[in-house]
Amino acid sequence: MQKDERLECLLNPESIAVIGASDNPEKLGYVIVNNIKESGFKGKIYPINPKVESILGINCYKSIKDVPDEVEIAEIVIPAKAVAGAMRECGEKGVKVVIVISSGFGEVGNKEMEKELVDICKKYNMRLIGPNVFGISNTISSCNATFGTKLPFKGETAFISQSGALGLALTDWTHIERVGLAYMFSIGNMADACQGDLIEVLADDENTKTICQYIEGVHNGRRFFEICKEASKIKPIVALKAGKSSRGEKAAASHTGSLAGASRIYEAAFKQSGVIEANSIRDMFYISLALSKQPPMRGDNLVILTNGGGAGVCATDAAERYGIPIGDISNELQSEFKKWMPEFGSAKNPVDLTGMATFKEYDGALRSALNNREVDGIIVVVCRTAVADPTSIANGIIESSKNSDKPITVSFIGGEDCAEAMNFLKENGVPAYSDPAEAVRAMAALREYGRYLERKEESFNPYSDVDKKKVREIISSTDGKAIVEHRAKEIFSAYGIKTPEEKVAKNAEEAERIASEIGYPVVMKIVSKDILHKSDAKAVKVNVKGGEVKETFEEIVKNAKAYKSDAEIEGVLVQEMAPSGRETIVGSLYDPQFGPCIMFGLGGIFVEVLKDVVFRLAPISKEEAKEMMKEIKGYPILKGVRGESSVDFDALADAVSRISQLVNDFPEIKEIDANPIFAYEKGYMVADARIILK
Amino acid sequence: MQKDERLECLLNPESIAVIGASDNPEKLGYVIVNNIKESGFKGKIYPINPKVESILGINCYKSIKDVPDEVEIAEIVIPAKAVAGAMRECGEKGVKVVIVISSGFGEVGNKEMEKELVDICKKYNMRLIGPNVFGISNTISSCNATFGTKLPFKGETAFISQSGALGLALTDWTHIERVGLAYMFSIGNMADACQGDLIEVLADDENTKTICQYIEGVHNGRRFFEICKEASKIKPIVALKAGKSSRGEKAAASHTGSLAGASRIYEAAFKQSGVIEANSIRDMFYISLALSKQPPMRGDNLVILTNGGGAGVCATDAAERYGIPIGDISNELQSEFKKWMPEFGSAKNPVDLTGMATFKEYDGALRSALNNREVDGIIVVVCRTAVADPTSIANGIIESSKNSDKPITVSFIGGEDCAEAMNFLKENGVPAYSDPAEAVRAMAALREYGRYLERKEESFNPYSDVDKKKVREIISSTDGKAIVEHRAKEIFSAYGIKTPEEKVAKNAEEAERIASEIGYPVVMKIVSKDILHKSDAKAVKVNVKGGEVKETFEEIVKNAKAYKSDAEIEGVLVQEMAPSGRETIVGSLYDPQFGPCIMFGLGGIFVEVLKDVVFRLAPISKEEAKEMMKEIKGYPILKGVRGESSVDFDALADAVSRISQLVNDFPEIKEIDANPIFAYEKGYMVADARIILK
Repeated sequence: MQKDERLECLLNPESIAVIGASDNPEKLGYVIVNNIKESGFKGKIYPINPKVESILGINCYKSIKDVPDEVEIAEIVIPAKAVAGAMRECGEKGVKVVIVISSGFGEVGNKEMEKELVDICKKYNMRLIGPNVFGISNTISSCNATFGTKLPFKGETAFISQSGALGLALTDWTHIERVGLAYMFSIGNMADACQGDLIEVLADDENTKTICQYIEGVHNGRRFFEICKEASKIKPIVALKAGKSSRGEKAAASHTGSLAGASRIYEAAFKQSGVIEANSIRDMFYISLALSKQPPMRGDNLVILTNGGGAGVCATDAAERYGIPIGDISNELQSEFKKWMPEFGSAKNPVDLTGMATFKEYDGALRSALNNREVDGIIVVVCRTAVADPTSIANGIIESSKNSDKPITVSFIGGEDCAEAMNFLKENGVPAYSDPAEAVRAMAALREYGRYLERKEESFNPYSDVDKKKVREIISSTDGKAIVEHRAKEIFSAYGIKTPEEKVAKNAEEAERIASEIGYPVVMKIVSKDILHKSDAKAVKVNVKGGEVKETFEEIVKNAKAYKSDAEIEGVLVQEMAPSGRETIVGSLYDPQFGPCIMFGLGGIFVEVLKDVVFRLAPISKEEAKEMMKEIKGYPILKGVRGESSVDFDALADAVSRISQLVNDFPEIKEIDANPIFAYEKGYMVADARIILK
Repeated sequence: MQKDERLECLLNPESIAVIGASDNPEKLGYVIVNNIKESGFKGKIYPINPKVESILGINCYKSIKDVPDEVEIAEIVIPAKAVAGAMRECGEKGVKVVIVISSGFGEVGNKEMEKELVDICKKYNMRLIGPNVFGISNTISSCNATFGTKLPFKGETAFISQSGALGLALTDWTHIERVGLAYMFSIGNMADACQGDLIEVLADDENTKTICQYIEGVHNGRRFFEICKEASKIKPIVALKAGKSSRGEKAAASHTGSLAGASRIYEAAFKQSGVIEANSIRDMFYISLALSKQPPMRGDNLVILTNGGGAGVCATDAAERYGIPIGDISNELQSEFKKWMPEFGSAKNPVDLTGMATFKEYDGALRSALNNREVDGIIVVVCRTAVADPTSIANGIIESSKNSDKPITVSFIGGEDCAEAMNFLKENGVPAYSDPAEAVRAMAALREYGRYLERKEESFNPYSDVDKKKVREIISSTDGKAIVEHRAKEIFSAYGIKTPEEKVAKNAEEAERIASEIGYPVVMKIVSKDILHKSDAKAVKVNVKGGEVKETFEEIVKNAKAYKSDAEIEGVLVQEMAPSGRETIVGSLYDPQFGPCIMFGLGGIFVEVLKDVVFRLAPISKEEAKEMMKEIKGYPILKGVRGESSVDFDALADAVSRISQLVNDFPEIKEIDANPIFAYEKGYMVADARIILK
């Protein structure tokens, strides 16, 4: 992957200066120097303080410029107003990365001060982490350059924390759960380096098996998305996104906008870029553990091995809940399993080895499962019994897992000896959890990652049969922000999206002529940029038959004037009456972080009441559009219920993909509501459309 | 509550005989005697074995009948075929409760042998726990009468386990999680005493604050339900129901049946009887802990106190997810909170005391919240920082909670010292969890219990204006199992449920006469017990106008005969054409465990595609019927969307309540599908109905 090589020194630092180092143990500048030293860092430490000779026996410099050797990283812990000056000195010294621990910048409104730091970075070709961070720690180089008390438990997950307090507290928690980290990065205000920059570097790092992030927000969502999309192909990425509740979400103008909510766009971005979303802190740690230790699950066939019927049923329930339901296993495999259980055992999935199972039975059954082609992943659930010795069973699992490319997750239910055996498992590459449901959840994450790797790389190929010039003309000639219906449909038409035949009539005679050209019945609607809610104005008539057109023209104009006397009326739109089909809705919105996004859902009550819609970042391929359709709850309706035949998914997906290209090509489009789009057995028709510009 | 006093000795046993006691440490009979002795049991232990003089220094008897004193409880660990004989001796001795640890009964198909044990119990007025159990343990009397190695961690939850292996393994787990139990009951095959019997006893036990159960199934669901309903008023009941996945659920004949699935009926029974359902083992333990330590949450106003913005947002997200979203707090309370935070803190909910918060700030803010009337529950979230000392904060919380009737749950995020402080909290009555989401989940359980206690006691008052005689006549005169539509509607009518005016015509002339009496247009349908799918047979015509009736009659009969030449045709039903309204469905089914159940949902696609239905055990009051309506996702449709007015909830609820009485009065009814019931602004109409008898 593309990456900024300056940031690579964070992974294996050779020299760190601490600007604001102190010999007073009460000060952060002392704590940090002490932590770096005590954590066993093998590189050079350069305390910087004009008033001190040495700190903790380490020679202290008056300025970073006085350091005789090269300095890769400078951590700054001085008052906010002095930071810029110190950073200039860093720049002159040729420092690669500055980590600004000091707070008092953007987070308290001092945006200008923060911007100054970024400008200095640019000038001197440095990168900045922070400001307002607790530092970084690194278990690979044994370097705790934070003001937290210790290094995280050692492991293979890189953690990027946007919260200071939480990141520090979680560093401690890793020891209790024995969920290890390779690095902990505090990224604070992200004035310069943000999640994406670190992910680019971590994607290529051999010590990082999984990248895990606590996210409150991103600065350039589109770039974050593109980076995750590529990095996910190399290694799994996990995210805990905070701030998902509706509390505080802003009201939005359009239908699509009101359905979006920030969290739904994040969800879409995560899903499309392969980022596995965690629900809670424990969940984040637990699935990261599995993803960093085990290979992805490459198929849907999950086998559960247990010695307790009840525990097996709990795991089975969880498997359905987490979207990896267990299925039947072949007679051949059942025969294999039967070798490892008494008569009254059950070789059906979940496989019950019975309470008599010892190391031998677990080991045999696990090997049978691993050697069988139909098995894609195995969950081993052990209830502590008098004969089920956790240590020997754990040993067996570790041995088996070494030679396997199938994922294994484990749950030992019991007391202290189970906890110890599980720690042993974790230290030896096998994720283990107290609750069988957690082992299942971990496997579900491994399956989710497997699915991301399996999916066909369907990159979006822009349609060439689109008339951008026409669209640009319509947009630039639009007065105000709302594009009236027939002009919106002209835009659609220019992008190859099917709209009804229609024309604006200036008078009743013209209306009749147009109607007879189109063929009866027709739909007639007022055309006025001043009347957006045409139905409310009684200025829409459907099913207008031959002989009724002139009269209807006059009525519509009259009603429109009655509704809004000063409305500027352009005419009346005479429109082919689209046969009714299954109502769908396609919308778009321009997200401030992620840019153009597209929405698909079933129209009518489904969208209004059930909010049964799905989002993607635009543009998307036809294949992706079809995936969206499968994700809505009302999908069976599109497939056809009560003997109905299926809608034309191919045509509908073509429309969605074309609209996604449209909003991607024209960032001046703020929102689109194409509602309804009638989906037919053959083809579709956009019956109404609305485009709003920024 | 009603209870069986014989079972009360399990709570505080004075004497236990072990039949099959052994002096061979390899045998269960030795292990159990040893466990009872070593766990510190103060009562009398009587080992029974004809071949041994004494076991572990305790005098051994040849037969239980030789014991000179009274024996309350006898545990039996001898081969299955000898159990009956031993039980007879117990009966003669006057034992109150026999616990049969031996397996080899119903669970391996030996139903007769199991029944014999029950017969012996009846004869001798004893109660039986088991067979096929691991025993019972009791931390109140310090008595481990199981073959597991130790007593559970001491606490105030009574645990009833239907799984042996899991129950034993969980006994060990209680020590790791410090989630304590008062009792652990293994109930095995439940040949005699089942969950309900124990719940009755535990409801009145002062050492039990919460009853927690791992359930695979119940034997008499209706009784279980009634007992839980009463016991829940006294103390909270938690259940982990295993076997909820669709795997293995049987196909059912009717619409309602196919939507039910065993797990949905259990969910309904739990909900109606106040049982709080857990999702996983950890969840079960964690919510039981909170319910056993803290008072229920008596209102919706939750306050979150934290020192880390990120952790606060995580808790806020979880609060929404678990159905207890946080709201705004008054300016007065905000002013109170502001006393306990620096300038840059946030007094809005979640309350951010900032990373500078120490014991003092937490203590002050917590007291402010507890003393404020608008607060109903408080979640304290602490990220370990240099100044946030877990021990002192924990002490403060414990002090505050002692004088409070508001629930508090806690999360300390950090390392070993946080874990210790949380153990200290748990030992002193405050539930604490590593993950803030878990503290929120625990509070949600406290709120769920609070809601159960708050709900109006709406007991069902049977309608007196129902004609049972008429219904009995129709049922007894029915040939076969399906009751034809117009007869089903007569049954509804007899129960005061509104159905269209309709009559069966034997010939075309009669049809015309009936139609003109009813008024046009009408609906006409074939009446034949041999044709259930009338539409498929093209034997239904709607919107039949004046002058079309005779012709339609002949057509329907012709089509019916073409569809099934040997169909016995009773005539053609001529029916008032109900105006179209919002389509709802009311169904019923007779569950083998729980008896008559009622279902409500939106009709059409909602029920078919989205399965948006809700169940209750019948009968239910009108109020309960209205609650059902609120629970479906499509509820807004009933309330009215797009400017529609609301349906007549009162009338619709009346219909649901009446149908629930009908199925309760006539257990011979297996299933009802009233589909659709058109709901109107005023009133409703059952447009089609089907009743199937057992």
